[in-house]
Amino acid sequence: LNSVVFLTLPVDSIYDSRSERVCVFGTGDLGRSLGLRLLQAGYGVVFGSRRPHSSSSLLPHGAQVLGHAAAAQSAHLIFIAVQREHYDFLVPLANQLKGKVLVDLSNNLKKNQYPEANAEYLQSLVPGAEVVKGFNTLSAWSLQNGPSDANRQVYICGESVEAKQAVIAVAIKLGFSALDRGFLSVARELEDFPLQLFPQWRLPLRIAIGLSAAFFFYLLIRDIIYAYVTQSKDISFRIMVSLANKVCPIVSLIMLSLCYLPGVLASFLQLYRGTKYRRFPDWLDRWMLCRKQLGLLALGFAFLHVLYTLIIPIRYYVWFKATERTVSMIRENRTTQFDMTTAWRGDSYLSLGILGFGLYVLLGITSLPSVSNALSWREFSFIQSKLGHLTLLLCTAHTYLYGWNRFLSSSTYKWYTPPGYMLCLVLPSVVLLLKLLLITPCVDRTITRIRQGWERGADQRNPKDNLSLRHEL
Amino acid sequence: LNSVVFLTLPVDSIYDSRSERVCVFGTGDLGRSLGLRLLQAGYGVVFGSRRPHSSSSLLPHGAQVLGHAAAAQSAHLIFIAVQREHYDFLVPLANQLKGKVLVDLSNNLKKNQYPEANAEYLQSLVPGAEVVKGFNTLSAWSLQNGPSDANRQVYICGESVEAKQAVIAVAIKLGFSALDRGFLSVARELEDFPLQLFPQWRLPLRIAIGLSAAFFFYLLIRDIIYAYVTQSKDISFRIMVSLANKVCPIVSLIMLSLCYLPGVLASFLQLYRGTKYRRFPDWLDRWMLCRKQLGLLALGFAFLHVLYTLIIPIRYYVWFKATERTVSMIRENRTTQFDMTTAWRGDSYLSLGILGFGLYVLLGITSLPSVSNALSWREFSFIQSKLGHLTLLLCTAHTYLYGWNRFLSSSTYKWYTPPGYMLCLVLPSVVLLLKLLLITPCVDRTITRIRQGWERGADQRNPKDNLSLRHEL
Amino acid sequence: LNSVVFLTLPVDSIYDSRSERVCVFGTGDLGRSLGLRLLQAGYGVVFGSRRPHSSSSLLPHGAQVLGHAAAAQSAHLIFIAVQREHYDFLVPLANQLKGKVLVDLSNNLKKNQYPEANAEYLQSLVPGAEVVKGFNTLSAWSLQNGPSDANRQVYICGESVEAKQAVIAVAIKLGFSALDRGFLSVARELEDFPLQLFPQWRLPLRIAIGLSAAFFFYLLIRDIIYAYVTQSKDISFRIMVSLANKVCPIVSLIMLSLCYLPGVLASFLQLYRGTKYRRFPDWLDRWMLCRKQLGLLALGFAFLHVLYTLIIPIRYYVWFKATERTVSMIRENRTTQFDMTTAWRGDSYLSLGILGFGLYVLLGITSLPSVSNALSWREFSFIQSKLGHLTLLLCTAHTYLYGWNRFLSSSTYKWYTPPGYMLCLVLPSVVLLLKLLLITPCVDRTITRIRQGWERGADQRNPKDNLSLRHEL
Repeated sequence: LNSVVFLTLPVDSIYDSRSERVCVFGTGDLGRSLGLRLLQAGYGVVFGSRRPHSSSSLLPHGAQVLGHAAAAQSAHLIFIAVQREHYDFLVPLANQLKGKVLVDLSNNLKKNQYPEANAEYLQSLVPGAEVVKGFNTLSAWSLQNGPSDANRQVYICGESVEAKQAVIAVAIKLGFSALDRGFLSVARELEDFPLQLFPQWRLPLRIAIGLSAAFFFYLLIRDIIYAYVTQSKDISFRIMVSLANKVCPIVSLIMLSLCYLPGVLASFLQLYRGTKYRRFPDWLDRWMLCRKQLGLLALGFAFLHVLYTLIIPIRYYVWFKATERTVSMIRENRTTQFDMTTAWRGDSYLSLGILGFGLYVLLGITSLPSVSNALSWREFSFIQSKLGHLTLLLCTAHTYLYGWNRFLSSSTYKWYTPPGYMLCLVLPSVVLLLKLLLITPCVDRTITRIRQGWERGADQRNPKDNLSLRHEL
Repeated sequence: LNSVVFLTLPVDSIYDSRSERVCVFGTGDLGRSLGLRLLQAGYGVVFGSRRPHSSSSLLPHGAQVLGHAAAAQSAHLIFIAVQREHYDFLVPLANQLKGKVLVDLSNNLKKNQYPEANAEYLQSLVPGAEVVKGFNTLSAWSLQNGPSDANRQVYICGESVEAKQAVIAVAIKLGFSALDRGFLSVARELEDFPLQLFPQWRLPLRIAIGLSAAFFFYLLIRDIIYAYVTQSKDISFRIMVSLANKVCPIVSLIMLSLCYLPGVLASFLQLYRGTKYRRFPDWLDRWMLCRKQLGLLALGFAFLHVLYTLIIPIRYYVWFKATERTVSMIRENRTTQFDMTTAWRGDSYLSLGILGFGLYVLLGITSLPSVSNALSWREFSFIQSKLGHLTLLLCTAHTYLYGWNRFLSSSTYKWYTPPGYMLCLVLPSVVLLLKLLLITPCVDRTITRIRQGWERGADQRNPKDNLSLRHEL
Repeated sequence: LNSVVFLTLPVDSIYDSRSERVCVFGTGDLGRSLGLRLLQAGYGVVFGSRRPHSSSSLLPHGAQVLGHAAAAQSAHLIFIAVQREHYDFLVPLANQLKGKVLVDLSNNLKKNQYPEANAEYLQSLVPGAEVVKGFNTLSAWSLQNGPSDANRQVYICGESVEAKQAVIAVAIKLGFSALDRGFLSVARELEDFPLQLFPQWRLPLRIAIGLSAAFFFYLLIRDIIYAYVTQSKDISFRIMVSLANKVCPIVSLIMLSLCYLPGVLASFLQLYRGTKYRRFPDWLDRWMLCRKQLGLLALGFAFLHVLYTLIIPIRYYVWFKATERTVSMIRENRTTQFDMTTAWRGDSYLSLGILGFGLYVLLGITSLPSVSNALSWREFSFIQSKLGHLTLLLCTAHTYLYGWNRFLSSSTYKWYTPPGYMLCLVLPSVVLLLKLLLITPCVDRTITRIRQGWERGADQRNPKDNLSLRHEL
């Protein structure tokens, strides 16, 4: 029976005792860090080394050092803390490694460095062993000092379930939570993971930086340089706040509309094709996949815009102008009339901005992993789609009210260029118009049918007795 | 041994090979989406269809199509992507389905549409098979394109553990994390899940909207209409900011006290009954269960209040009034004395508000799932109860200071109605008074004993050797 | 074969039926609450009691009450809801308890109350049984009403894997998610968990409070008392806002630098020792472990600082001063010149503050558990280290610009004491300087090599074929 239990229970039960032994190949930094952690977790640790005697001095106290062959025989689980280039030393050990679980911890220095994943390469070298990829996504810090805030999760993959369970058991004892990601074919993905630095953020960040730079220089010319050339007035100090407070909202609004444009385009594409079963072009797919990042960056800029706006009255320049105006009013004995329209416009403008920002923040919060995981997809799509478009609407209206009637006065168009807020209104207006089209009853009905699997000129092919999905885009 | 392994290992090991076959009944949208995902995850997919030949054309490339009977025999796991109304076609297949795992993916269009859950109905039709409910909480998006931000979690339930493990194994390979929710009796719950749209938020939202509307009209009459009728002054523009900035704090404060009132009431009820073992009335239970939502909505209104307050100095109206005052001061050669009391009052009023809002935000952050999960219940109750009541105290004091001595001057009571901030002070004051009563030593002692299981006139029944819980409400 | 299945499947399959029976020892509050939950989850519940008849009246309806011996025999799983002091009543039941799973739910009133953990003590009393520690971290609320926002996670530990699986199965059916923490030796840790109240926050909070108090009194003397003594002017009202708005930024900046100082010190220590394999002194370790808390508190103070700054223009005092100035300007017929330098300085000062705060918030968000878990350690360290130091840089520059040339004018040094912002600049400047040293190519190279396991005068010991870790501190 035991042998059955051996095969069938999560492996930690096999050696369910303090004296469980684990083997580590490689006495480098990773090997030593891991060995230390294993000892602390109550394992017996045996190091496999080419020169047991020379290296022993360095190793954590309490660990045993043997030659590779002897070490391999001493344990069922062997951590391979050796660089891929040197895996070949394992080939002669084929016999000792037969049936053993080899954990491949290795990472590469850059992506696609080798034709196949290190773990797959290892498996091909030692076919008799059961290779499991894992732990490689952990930081040095986590492996030496246990789970940190950054890494509690350990990802593993491999062909054999028992082998994976054995590794999961060790991970749990080391204080990590392990997730089985499937077959060894996933190894490549796991090996690329630690190399990535915000891959999904690349494109959105580039867009944000590009837009910021473009509008910064555009406004620099229109406002500061224009003033200098035409009235030879130096108002360069405005760069720090006034200009920043123009760039932020502009970029924010454009990014927000960029975040809702792909969904609209996709709908029109489906409408045009009359089916949902043809893949979207790659550029559209990529675009759709970075909507979240686009939205969060937009929120960031909106946040800065709010701060920049709120500090206006604290600015020396503003205080100075205000005083100047009052003083001149008195000296020249002028009086001003309270203008109801300005009051209405100004207040609505501010109010719309506040409500828009409120919704903005709500969208941001619901895109936190722990929050969105707690939502049913109907709830999630309600917030991200319905409230999202409402946010876009509010922010666009906010900007239109800001422009107000200045759209008409020619003085607005210095050097025949439109001000920034006009430029940034184009995209959101388009998105909102298209969305408006999509929610008109007739169009919406077709879209919904298409999303439920209906295909133009293919109705009879989709028997009524089959289950369909509600739409969500 | 294989047969043992078959029964005993997480099922993915059974077909531990690329060629594992899964069967899908129903060639509708859901069936096709799922089939595509399964193929991508390396499964062999066999569709069961009434007209294998007609439907095949539509199905994802690489999938096989057979008649239902043949398809059923080809795989151990069968996804039922067919509407409940048509389940009966499975009855004649009873033999082929014996011992198979049937995954019920179906959802209903509205709650309690049928006497029993679809999955239970399916089980009753095919008693020989092992029915597992699952995947139905996923969105179209997730099922077609894999886990999205919104859905990574898959919930399943069923009677047989092996069957559930088989389904979990598939879920993991598709990139989801599966959670066993228990027996098939849970199916109804799982089937209702996708239909829900913020069920716990309904009541709090209604309260919030109701309060907002009520106070909006109340203040509309007291401020704008009153001014128009008595002094025929049109100050309607104030609706956008001034009025909004009165409604928000009022609603926020009332909601916050509504969030702490039920706890206080519950304590008094226990005190009155002298036991904790009698259930609370339903209305109180429901109320207690939506405290979190009440609090978060209150935070939302507080957030808007802060923004509305901070933009005050940017407003045209405010700027105009300020200038006017200064100008008139000079023209009429008046001078004003610096009033120390006003300075003290104004600054403390602002400072209390800021501190209150700071705590408010802290409460909001700790109610994020990932944060509250990391807290021990003692820590959680410390923040939500102790700090929560402190927040209420600060915000109430903030409002009292705002009112200051205007409580006395009759001019405050236009048309004999009290201003909004007075009305909104009633509830928080009551809550704080009751709470004050509860924390007086003598009362607190009794409450604690009751919460530890003591019952008035029943001491001898609760032997000292039994474990009691610390209190938390 | 069944017996195999019995041993090898997650134990819930053993009693896979509604009538599964679980036993609860102890009819106290905890026992009854738990019993109720178990009944609701569809278990058959048998209470073990010293006086079955007397206590039955109190117990949840549907539960059975027997003597301890009889109860023990009726179920495989027994919850021990009895205080440790009374465990000895189990000794005579040794035979009935042989092979049973005993779940120890007990908590202590203070840490290290007993030489060994309650669960270990229990195991020593009943060696024949399989003791599992668990559920003790749950709140009364959660145990009675099911998973609350605060507690969804159940931690368990024990020697036997089957026993643990049995308990996990129950936990899942009760709606909790259970995490195996390893051997019974972890029990002590689990028993201490519910007693803890923000242990990692203690030190940072003390520092924050200490600093706040110190600077409050320092500034109280320098500003308010100084003004009173030298010019007998009462400006005590400034305490509420002006003073608070000086204390907050000062404490925030110091705390932020305290959060990055230990990392820098650690690097220099490693540089000095020429190895990473000697442990850091305890004080440094403790310091490093509370960096996150230090940072979050610093963010809190920065948040208050922002609010205090933004309300400045709403203050009565500020309005009064502004008017006074304007009035006097006119009466004395003075005119002011617009000072470009002041404009530049003021705006840059504000702009730096805003950007700094923006990054501050970003750091805060990424330290949310659910967010940081989604990051690879490379991403996490990029944000927390790179962006973190950038934040420190921005905030320090912000403060320097605030001070500007006042560093030179003697009038700044009332009573020969430097103003607060000068004092708070010392630490961040030091940290930034040291960090600057560390990132100079030559030093950085050495550090990196050390972090990769290289040791001064020990190169040959670290064979090239061993795997090294990228650095992260």
